[in-house]
Amino acid sequence: MTETTSYDPAPPDIVRAAYGELVVGDLESARWFWVNVLGFVVTAASSSPKALYLRGYDELTHHNLILTEGRTPAAARLAYRVRTPDDLDRAERFHRERGCRTERVPAGATRGVGEAVRVEDPLGFTLEFFRDIEPAERLIQRYDLRRGGHIARIDHFNLMVPDVPASYRYYSSLGFGCSETIEDEDTLYAAWMYRKQTVHDVAFTGGAGPRLHHIGFFAHESHQVLHVCDILGSLHEEAHIERGPGRHGVSNAFYVYLRDPDGHRMEIYTSDYYTGDPDHPTYRWSVHDPRRRDFWGHEVVESWYKEGSAVLDLDGTPRPVSDSRIDESAVTVGADGLGIIRREPGAGTRTVSPPGARS
Amino acid sequence: MTETTSYDPAPPDIVRAAYGELVVGDLESARWFWVNVLGFVVTAASSSPKALYLRGYDELTHHNLILTEGRTPAAARLAYRVRTPDDLDRAERFHRERGCRTERVPAGATRGVGEAVRVEDPLGFTLEFFRDIEPAERLIQRYDLRRGGHIARIDHFNLMVPDVPASYRYYSSLGFGCSETIEDEDTLYAAWMYRKQTVHDVAFTGGAGPRLHHIGFFAHESHQVLHVCDILGSLHEEAHIERGPGRHGVSNAFYVYLRDPDGHRMEIYTSDYYTGDPDHPTYRWSVHDPRRRDFWGHEVVESWYKEGSAVLDLDGTPRPVSDSRIDESAVTVGADGLGIIRREPGAGTRTVSPPGARS
Amino acid sequence: MTETTSYDPAPPDIVRAAYGELVVGDLESARWFWVNVLGFVVTAASSSPKALYLRGYDELTHHNLILTEGRTPAAARLAYRVRTPDDLDRAERFHRERGCRTERVPAGATRGVGEAVRVEDPLGFTLEFFRDIEPAERLIQRYDLRRGGHIARIDHFNLMVPDVPASYRYYSSLGFGCSETIEDEDTLYAAWMYRKQTVHDVAFTGGAGPRLHHIGFFAHESHQVLHVCDILGSLHEEAHIERGPGRHGVSNAFYVYLRDPDGHRMEIYTSDYYTGDPDHPTYRWSVHDPRRRDFWGHEVVESWYKEGSAVLDLDGTPRPVSDSRIDESAVTVGADGLGIIRREPGAGTRTVSPPGARS
Amino acid sequence: MTETTSYDPAPPDIVRAAYGELVVGDLESARWFWVNVLGFVVTAASSSPKALYLRGYDELTHHNLILTEGRTPAAARLAYRVRTPDDLDRAERFHRERGCRTERVPAGATRGVGEAVRVEDPLGFTLEFFRDIEPAERLIQRYDLRRGGHIARIDHFNLMVPDVPASYRYYSSLGFGCSETIEDEDTLYAAWMYRKQTVHDVAFTGGAGPRLHHIGFFAHESHQVLHVCDILGSLHEEAHIERGPGRHGVSNAFYVYLRDPDGHRMEIYTSDYYTGDPDHPTYRWSVHDPRRRDFWGHEVVESWYKEGSAVLDLDGTPRPVSDSRIDESAVTVGADGLGIIRREPGAGTRTVSPPGARS
Repeated sequence: MTETTSYDPAPPDIVRAAYGELVVGDLESARWFWVNVLGFVVTAASSSPKALYLRGYDELTHHNLILTEGRTPAAARLAYRVRTPDDLDRAERFHRERGCRTERVPAGATRGVGEAVRVEDPLGFTLEFFRDIEPAERLIQRYDLRRGGHIARIDHFNLMVPDVPASYRYYSSLGFGCSETIEDEDTLYAAWMYRKQTVHDVAFTGGAGPRLHHIGFFAHESHQVLHVCDILGSLHEEAHIERGPGRHGVSNAFYVYLRDPDGHRMEIYTSDYYTGDPDHPTYRWSVHDPRRRDFWGHEVVESWYKEGSAVLDLDGTPRPVSDSRIDESAVTVGADGLGIIRREPGAGTRTVSPPGARS
Repeated sequence: MTETTSYDPAPPDIVRAAYGELVVGDLESARWFWVNVLGFVVTAASSSPKALYLRGYDELTHHNLILTEGRTPAAARLAYRVRTPDDLDRAERFHRERGCRTERVPAGATRGVGEAVRVEDPLGFTLEFFRDIEPAERLIQRYDLRRGGHIARIDHFNLMVPDVPASYRYYSSLGFGCSETIEDEDTLYAAWMYRKQTVHDVAFTGGAGPRLHHIGFFAHESHQVLHVCDILGSLHEEAHIERGPGRHGVSNAFYVYLRDPDGHRMEIYTSDYYTGDPDHPTYRWSVHDPRRRDFWGHEVVESWYKEGSAVLDLDGTPRPVSDSRIDESAVTVGADGLGIIRREPGAGTRTVSPPGARS
Repeated sequence: MTETTSYDPAPPDIVRAAYGELVVGDLESARWFWVNVLGFVVTAASSSPKALYLRGYDELTHHNLILTEGRTPAAARLAYRVRTPDDLDRAERFHRERGCRTERVPAGATRGVGEAVRVEDPLGFTLEFFRDIEPAERLIQRYDLRRGGHIARIDHFNLMVPDVPASYRYYSSLGFGCSETIEDEDTLYAAWMYRKQTVHDVAFTGGAGPRLHHIGFFAHESHQVLHVCDILGSLHEEAHIERGPGRHGVSNAFYVYLRDPDGHRMEIYTSDYYTGDPDHPTYRWSVHDPRRRDFWGHEVVESWYKEGSAVLDLDGTPRPVSDSRIDESAVTVGADGLGIIRREPGAGTRTVSPPGARS
Repeated sequence: MTETTSYDPAPPDIVRAAYGELVVGDLESARWFWVNVLGFVVTAASSSPKALYLRGYDELTHHNLILTEGRTPAAARLAYRVRTPDDLDRAERFHRERGCRTERVPAGATRGVGEAVRVEDPLGFTLEFFRDIEPAERLIQRYDLRRGGHIARIDHFNLMVPDVPASYRYYSSLGFGCSETIEDEDTLYAAWMYRKQTVHDVAFTGGAGPRLHHIGFFAHESHQVLHVCDILGSLHEEAHIERGPGRHGVSNAFYVYLRDPDGHRMEIYTSDYYTGDPDHPTYRWSVHDPRRRDFWGHEVVESWYKEGSAVLDLDGTPRPVSDSRIDESAVTVGADGLGIIRREPGAGTRTVSPPGARS
């Protein structure tokens, strides 16, 4: 946990990334993907709105994901749990002070969730802060029920943002520590930031935004990640596998990225590391290290860099998307692995940057 | 994290179980076991005292285990990391107020460790509280170096104590949360308590004490636990495997217990769960559930219940050991799995308690 | 494959252990265990006899296991596939010449199976030899269907016999190679014999017999073996786990032994080795090596040595059981791990043999 | 095993793919890759020729791979083990009859190997047939020695050939069964053929040839495949990872392809299936199924289709390489996955074939 006392007003004491709400075009298709294939547990279903409340097998709270049927696929909001009821007030004051639109909603505004504060944050995302949530039946040891990817719990949000340094500053002011970055001498290309004692609760990918890049979920072992891919191949639905499985350089986690029927991206992720010590250091990757995005040196597919989910404001209207500033965007492309990497086995790896990458 | 404000004076803000120091009879034998077989990383070796400073591959601090050569095998002390320098003062005041002998040692008293407070705690263990520790080279992604059990990091201490409720109260006063227990209507047989966001930093096993039952270390996947056993079999050193591998009921972790050349017990452990939410519930096992100690119903070997390492006071003298109070001891035996369990496949499991178990 | 030409008349060219038929007391209970929990695939069900025809996910033939409802749990017969139709004649002549009762049954006598020869073999087991069997739908890549232990295929039969050397001689005359044994200077305690290119299609455990000790099934990875145990614990049906998981000394396989609702024993087994070379050597374990039955040195539970399934003759009548000859029986007990093994960590393992073990 | 009696003269009774000899530019670089990184066991080293004799941990014969230092990287020969000494004569007659150049070499011509027959086969590869080979120390249960990818044994050769149907016919005449193919109505693009009871001992990839595409080695579990990649990433030698890890459609195996310092390709491979039954069926993949080469639908990197190792004739001279016939080559490109595959998550997968693919 990092020091949070230098900001005025004080930020809320955020515990962790808690849940996301995704708008999907057809709830039955979404149920097929998230429940039947990936094996998420259905805590509840509602008819108005037409929605599913899902969680992983280790999860002791009502949901980590809400799927709501709507006209246009989008990320409706991202929710953080806070430590005490007073942290709702802090969240409200903290964001008002920054000129953000805020809204207080009563218990039950989200099924299973207590009173909450919602804000349009400075980056353009709709966040929710809540303290109370209904407990869910303990399924940690119901191995008989596990299916698909044996999803244990939500881990993090990954945000596509035009301005990574601004995103880093905002989350620093909220008391997040920084576990890892991708940088060069001049530029911060990406950052991973945490409140709970893992590598991240939130991360930033440079790109047109605000958009949701993905929601990350934790599984316990790598064979569970492989098994999801095998199931998708069996069903001839392998096109849902966008990238991986592979080992991340950043975070060291073993991962796969999937796209749901609406194109929302999700990650299954295992084997990162503990970050709870008071002086936990930030590990800084050079943007020129080909292992930063894939430790085995595989190129990142272009869709992974370019596509994301629209985000909604407090009224449910899609937020306009800004491109990255031109200079940064060009660099970001190179930084994010779209440079031409020529492999010469036995002679190491040489990265040829695209034009403008260094200018 | 649980509320810590109701105690006066305030307890130190403990981050986690950080390291243990074990006295071993022959350092070269101990090195063979911990380094060559289990694959611990050697951060440093000293000649006076003759000692090794070890850590796991994910560990970013100087050591999680010190092996010191001495005449009699024992646990010299158990160390907790605290959040701020002021927490050293808090640790001192907190224990003095309870009539505990305390000692402040300067930076370097333990190699790599900053200024520290040591105490003889109310349970009879010598604890150390420190804030500062030298960083260690980051080996998280040095898969080329990993050997043996691919040990990632220290996880917890397990203490043998005659009075489990008193142990529970002391650690509650230090701000530890309680993730799981073994109980019946009248008695608390065992408890698992945490500061970091895992199932435990400390646990109590009822028995003659104070003694150290084991130090637990985390590995990332179950095949790494199996691999250590295979290596020990290959070397015809399988007698070092005391119990398991198996799945715990309590904590849900996949485990094995090994005994080092001096008989010190260690556990390799994987797949427990996140406990960082503010209202994380305590899960209570009935002492009559045969799955509590081994989820697959296997009986616990008697040595596991009866044997432990002596602990030293601040002068390095072994602490006298008290038996559990008679009534409790008899029950504990039953509670801990030494009751006669008759398996009747197809007809469920029936536990026949030993005489006196319920009296 | 070993030479088969030295016997007159020539034995059939046996391909592999193909299926077993088990009589169970209640087919619905058996279905719960084998299908719902373990995940066997149901190829077919018949009402007269009331039976289920099961197979593993890699299996391309009709079944590897038949469960038939009947009054008394027993192993009705064990079936070997042969290479050509002529091998049925060879099987018949070979056994008649040895004074064995034989019977030729038409195609369809067993559902899905072609014409077959059944014999009461010299050891007292009812064997079936067949060449033709209906193909089954290829499910090798239907990961979406896999459940339980992800059973891939049948591997072997393990027989409890009073006279291991006689069993070894009979199967040698059938052209089986011998991959491993447990011996001392004077005695053959156990043997593993193969036709296909794995460690075994059949093995012998000394004890009162003829009885079926277990049928072994292959899974691809060790985590699948662990998962079955976790499922049984989840259902509070852990009493079905008799022994393991563990690593065998003999065969090097990772194993677990389960008991079905009628007490029939089955093994899930992975990671043995290729035996197809012409001069494949026999690996001989000393009966005094505590790792032979469990490479990690764990004692074998007594039920594993003492209990087995009755076998039926060609008329469906249970075969009488002979005890092992007295001398052998006493030694076998010691040989099979019931000797008192005292573990002294740090000092190696010492085996104290029971009285008579060496006489 | 398939029928071999219809050819005259009779082919040798081939047991399995046994070893390959690769010429490498620098033996120390090769040793670093194969021994230090991948963990192959060194049975022997010779100084004239400067060579290493390697094997996997399950291997009971002298070597499965010879690395010989020479001027130009190439595959010197591929060796099959035969069942009896008479099979050497059969191999000689069989190939002479087909107009192939043959050579009989005495025991010891290859270190550890008995008398052998070498031939320039009709496809342009130099093959060796031998019966006798020195046994090697049994390391199956020396888990303490395992490193890198925990390679168990050699599995197969993959050959780049201009004419896949001719290759299929030649190996059929040698008694190989066919487990899987890639086809369309008119054309055989690839085939997998076996003698031992796995998916293959040899396979054909259409392309300019004769060249060696890769030698495949078996490991027991998928985490061992991942571990090799992690080690290469750790060493910043990730450029040796050419393709994967992934799941094959064909064979169902989990795989990775690596390139050694001279560019020789090798595969580590696990979880294929048993093929030993007499009527084992051939499974035929449509060339239009995007899962045939990667069950998760990932595109195959171009180098994997285009690059291979030169092969040497009996005099050690590189064989000239013929392009695939023009029509076939164009189709093969499409067939092998270089068609433009557009992923449309939620809408299935559409393959756009390159020009000429169907003509």
